[in-house]
Amino acid sequence: MVENEKDLKDLETEQSALSEEETSEQHDAPSEKNESSELEEALGKIASLEAKAEEYETKLLRVQADFENYKRRARMDAEAAQKYRAQSLVSEILPALDNFERALKVEAADEQTKSLLQGMEMVHRQLVSALKAEGVEEIETVGKPFDPQFHQAVMQAEEEGYEPNTVIEEFQKGYKLKDRVIRPSMVKVSQ
Amino acid sequence: MVENEKDLKDLETEQSALSEEETSEQHDAPSEKNESSELEEALGKIASLEAKAEEYETKLLRVQADFENYKRRARMDAEAAQKYRAQSLVSEILPALDNFERALKVEAADEQTKSLLQGMEMVHRQLVSALKAEGVEEIETVGKPFDPQFHQAVMQAEEEGYEPNTVIEEFQKGYKLKDRVIRPSMVKVSQ
Repeated sequence: MVENEKDLKDLETEQSALSEEETSEQHDAPSEKNESSELEEALGKIASLEAKAEEYETKLLRVQADFENYKRRARMDAEAAQKYRAQSLVSEILPALDNFERALKVEAADEQTKSLLQGMEMVHRQLVSALKAEGVEEIETVGKPFDPQFHQAVMQAEEEGYEPNTVIEEFQKGYKLKDRVIRPSMVKVSQ
Repeated sequence: MVENEKDLKDLETEQSALSEEETSEQHDAPSEKNESSELEEALGKIASLEAKAEEYETKLLRVQADFENYKRRARMDAEAAQKYRAQSLVSEILPALDNFERALKVEAADEQTKSLLQGMEMVHRQLVSALKAEGVEEIETVGKPFDPQFHQAVMQAEEEGYEPNTVIEEFQKGYKLKDRVIRPSMVKVSQ
């Protein structure tokens, strides 16, 4: 963008130079010269006008091309901004969601706790589905092949019944926003 | 934007018309005419070239002005998209937040409920502060003058100790995202 603006500046400067040239040419009219020198002068003027018209045409084409490029890029930027618009709020919410899920793990020992837990589980589901509606998804872990793009291995262990390089435990949930990883899962991987 | 694109189309058509004109002029070279008619022809060509150069210049200036306008508008659009980027997720989250706050209103009758409630209150504070970090704020209600921009009056009542047209009770919280009302508060207003 900065480059385009520089180009336009250059262009404006050159244009005003061209306009001055035009003005000065108009001043010395070839009224007292003979026809042959008048013709010579006219041919010179034709050459310079042709050059000038060509220069404007070149500049016009360049500005049009810059304009088209700018539009294409602006559209792409706007699409990306729209696609990942929730990213900042999602990142802010994830720690609250972690704590929410930790708190929900309590074993209810009485009816009041049980009822409060049920209410809170509903709130949690609502929150998760609000995030989902914006394109937020949990990254799959246990049983999946380890993928450094989505998983952060914080431990390795030998574990029976698992292929090597498979996620065998999840320590912290990871999340994607559409195709972008917002936070990788923290996992344990089989050797 | 559509207008600009139409302009560019027009321009391209006109340009190719101009190029054809130029080509045809170059074909009939004035080699066998006398000097006077050559001069006449040259002067005619000068006039047409001047018109052509001027036309290009005018178009160049128009495209440059369109380009600048487009850039200004694209910047403004991008700023607005950035400013209210969280709006969609916020709107989705508000019903969960309402239920969260409703669930927190329980009177804890035992230690376990009390401890669960404390944990959930912390989660709630974290959630509210995540929303706040993105520019979400509760709309002030009780004791404030009724403002239809922020408050939706669902009841009116005479109430001692309140000026007329004052919010005296809040039924549902309202929220702003920066300067934009996401949901007005539902309130009771003094007559």
